[in-house]
Amino acid sequence: MEKKKAMQIEGYPIEGLSIGGHETCIIFPSLRIAFDIGRCPHRAISQDFLFISHSHMDHIGGLPMYVATRGLYKMKPPTIIVPASIKETVESLFEVHRKLDSSELKHNLVGLDIGEEFIIRKDLKVKAFKTFHVIQSQGYVVYSTKYKLKKEYIGLSGNEIKNLKVSGVEITDSIITPEVAFTGDTTSDFVVDETNADALKAKVLVMESTFLDDSVSVEHARDYGHIHISEIVNHAEKFENKAILLIHFSARYTVKEIEDAVSALPPPLEGRVFALTQGF
Amino acid sequence: MEKKKAMQIEGYPIEGLSIGGHETCIIFPSLRIAFDIGRCPHRAISQDFLFISHSHMDHIGGLPMYVATRGLYKMKPPTIIVPASIKETVESLFEVHRKLDSSELKHNLVGLDIGEEFIIRKDLKVKAFKTFHVIQSQGYVVYSTKYKLKKEYIGLSGNEIKNLKVSGVEITDSIITPEVAFTGDTTSDFVVDETNADALKAKVLVMESTFLDDSVSVEHARDYGHIHISEIVNHAEKFENKAILLIHFSARYTVKEIEDAVSALPPPLEGRVFALTQGF
Repeated sequence: MEKKKAMQIEGYPIEGLSIGGHETCIIFPSLRIAFDIGRCPHRAISQDFLFISHSHMDHIGGLPMYVATRGLYKMKPPTIIVPASIKETVESLFEVHRKLDSSELKHNLVGLDIGEEFIIRKDLKVKAFKTFHVIQSQGYVVYSTKYKLKKEYIGLSGNEIKNLKVSGVEITDSIITPEVAFTGDTTSDFVVDETNADALKAKVLVMESTFLDDSVSVEHARDYGHIHISEIVNHAEKFENKAILLIHFSARYTVKEIEDAVSALPPPLEGRVFALTQGF
Repeated sequence: MEKKKAMQIEGYPIEGLSIGGHETCIIFPSLRIAFDIGRCPHRAISQDFLFISHSHMDHIGGLPMYVATRGLYKMKPPTIIVPASIKETVESLFEVHRKLDSSELKHNLVGLDIGEEFIIRKDLKVKAFKTFHVIQSQGYVVYSTKYKLKKEYIGLSGNEIKNLKVSGVEITDSIITPEVAFTGDTTSDFVVDETNADALKAKVLVMESTFLDDSVSVEHARDYGHIHISEIVNHAEKFENKAILLIHFSARYTVKEIEDAVSALPPPLEGRVFALTQGF
């Protein structure tokens, strides 16, 4: 099976590939999360949680294969989170494949509306945020939650703290941090939408940047529901992220053209922007 | 995009990959034909005709992606031939994806019953033959048709032949030759089915051989609708094919184990059996 190099950004190994119009699947193995499934690259199969941004084939085509292959490996059924508006249609997709494949294709399907949260674990949750593509689409922000003993209880003995807890007193403060954000396909309008502040604060922002040069205008990029890199430069001040991983470049570009475009980025983007060129 | 080595057997370049339970797509680029689509390997996209043996996910999972990617490349709509019994369900698969993808997903879908022929061109046709799998499945034989002037007209002038033809006289004999046969998934029962004679005469027989050693019994292979290589040895005399390409080995085997099993085949199989180990 093909060996893919893992990038490491802000402590997160990141795998997968994203070629505009062809396939997009971004994998955070340490979170056991994949964003979009593309053609279901092998590494996606072992991720327990799959967040789908929208139902274009290059983002959702490999969905039945993902569920079937986990079944083949006797892995636990995955949890698949989709925009609430397409949940029913995705269910019918699995109905058709159950008929074709004569197998159960076990999975948990969750419809998530924009602004709604999905709790993965006590210390990890994901919220859907608004994006602007040619069909219904949404991005996701992954939050870590750390629990810190409230100041007033620092210095108490273990038993005293335990008794407080047992008596129902909330003894900790939760520190919620946006860790990772994934845009899926979108125009740059998502950047100026005030409800999306956390996406611009996440440690790592995985953002599409389909078009890189003058061969395509910003208007064209917007018409097709995508981002032109020049728009990222214009919005540079707004990105508080520690790192930005650009994905979903059009298949017209070579690795060199992509890397040149990224290394030409001016401050304050310079040095904290990476490009996923796997498959180019 | 991944570069795959093409085998060359009896003048036919053959590409694709076949890993039992995972993905099977066998490509004959010179015929512009693919048998089964697996996860839609890149080389399958340029094949205009796709013959599906049965609807298990590892054989049909990449079907929507195949049609969508041809649309993306502005290629002509492909022709997809499926067992007649699943045509309606495949249509509903595309209906669901049209809703999800908001695109036309143009293609021609043909249901073919066992014994029925599909004419690709004047000199190329394909017939479905009976196989024995755990769900409805069928194999395909590709025939070439050559037209030879009838003996009685040899020696006539060009004009005389033309006039005969124009007056409606059949001036040629058709020489129909089984060129390639593809079994899809099946037990060895297909070999002893008298209606399948042409599959055993085809120049190249592409046959599944899922199990290769004693770790699995013949009974187990049959229960799962597959072939054990020992059954191929037992039926050796029946294969009149010039060459046999074995595919669909279980993922438990290594390339070395596969090659050892094939090189250990006794006469009359020895020297004309090949193994597709791409992806192992």
